[in-house]
Amino acid sequence: MPDEEKRAIKTIAVLIAMEAEAEPLISSFKLLPCPKSHHHAPLPSVVRSGEFSFGEENKAVEIVLVTCGQDATHAVDSVGTVNAALCAYEVLKTHRPDVLINAGTAGGFQSKGCEIGDVFLVSEVKFHDRRIPIPTFTSYGIGAIETLKTPNMRAEISSLKSGICSTGNSLDATDVDREMMLQNDASVKEMEAAAVAKVCEMFKTPFVCVKAITDIVDGPHATETEFLENLAMAGRRLQETVPKVLEFMSGKSVADL
Amino acid sequence: MPDEEKRAIKTIAVLIAMEAEAEPLISSFKLLPCPKSHHHAPLPSVVRSGEFSFGEENKAVEIVLVTCGQDATHAVDSVGTVNAALCAYEVLKTHRPDVLINAGTAGGFQSKGCEIGDVFLVSEVKFHDRRIPIPTFTSYGIGAIETLKTPNMRAEISSLKSGICSTGNSLDATDVDREMMLQNDASVKEMEAAAVAKVCEMFKTPFVCVKAITDIVDGPHATETEFLENLAMAGRRLQETVPKVLEFMSGKSVADL
Repeated sequence: MPDEEKRAIKTIAVLIAMEAEAEPLISSFKLLPCPKSHHHAPLPSVVRSGEFSFGEENKAVEIVLVTCGQDATHAVDSVGTVNAALCAYEVLKTHRPDVLINAGTAGGFQSKGCEIGDVFLVSEVKFHDRRIPIPTFTSYGIGAIETLKTPNMRAEISSLKSGICSTGNSLDATDVDREMMLQNDASVKEMEAAAVAKVCEMFKTPFVCVKAITDIVDGPHATETEFLENLAMAGRRLQETVPKVLEFMSGKSVADL
Repeated sequence: MPDEEKRAIKTIAVLIAMEAEAEPLISSFKLLPCPKSHHHAPLPSVVRSGEFSFGEENKAVEIVLVTCGQDATHAVDSVGTVNAALCAYEVLKTHRPDVLINAGTAGGFQSKGCEIGDVFLVSEVKFHDRRIPIPTFTSYGIGAIETLKTPNMRAEISSLKSGICSTGNSLDATDVDREMMLQNDASVKEMEAAAVAKVCEMFKTPFVCVKAITDIVDGPHATETEFLENLAMAGRRLQETVPKVLEFMSGKSVADL
């Protein structure tokens, strides 16, 4: 076991693509603008941080919460893999967290038992929109990466479901996307996780992924309608869950998770 | 006109996704490992640089050529938007070039007059695989960005064709991708340019895009077959063309291009 897996976790980065997804968490933790925000320029990322002590023991931990920020041209949150990867890169380079958690909302497959409001602790991430039919490149395109194994946390926070998350740059899904997600054995579909995981892999930073379900991918309703209807609710579900994850991690080592 | 557009161009970054695309250029310019390569860690990027003087006048310019490098897990070139954006981000942050050129190979549309071996000086980049059917997000997803206007260079290097480049993370194209590329009015299809352009926009760095055609998107042959057959030839076409672009730029200001 590498030494860094035995050290107590001191800094946890939380990457959330959209402000609306992050808002309940920012309010409840009373996070403030991070003094190192200028390192992130010229990315539109918004970086907030704070020191917290959880529980009766004095288990202090620094939380760095980064959102992808507003696109300067289009005035919407910078969702998708490109901006999430850039955001992850700078947060890992500047803050050197012990763990990075990508939290956010996602679509879920009812064929995998998903219901709106479920929260997943993702087991593995893959891409479904990077088809490269040259044999040596195919697995690179899918880009499967296992998340950090956290058996103790999974046992402690029993409400968390487990499943594979499939990432693509579109909110909707074509027939080909659906076929790829089926091949990926996906329970969850969203727009950032596999890109963030790749950057964590480069930095050898443990990657944890928590996704709350806003819509049913294989159900009768259009993703965009369900997504907008359930975004605030899923944000609250994240706000209930992510603090439990942070509390469980703080003071422990990566190996103890 | 901003002052930086009137200053002589001193540093030009050239971003090429694949080693095989870059090889003829690296050889002909005898580029060496860049002393600032360590700034790019832990990206797999390979950074080479050199100082050059073109023509009879002493127009010295520093060239920083960065390739996306080999994926550590899958041992193939790190193609696609995520790695190209990360690569662009670090090259812009570390080297602060006056211009960034994204050069590489691409598919071309015969319906737009493309032939294999053509070299395009791209006029605008857009994504075709970021469908976000929420009205406020749709144009963000397409992410159209005009390249630097270079009327004088276009007149000087008359072999360069002009057209719109559409970017997606797959080498192939589904029917939906083809519909999106048609809507994008694309002449050229590849896997990095729109992501690189976005990063250049964040840094306010002028973005130039040169793409050599390896395969016909709307022709009878599979992209992967034509791509592999014509990759070396397209690399040589880039090697003929990119030095002309670099020579034209060196010593001039951005406003003079």
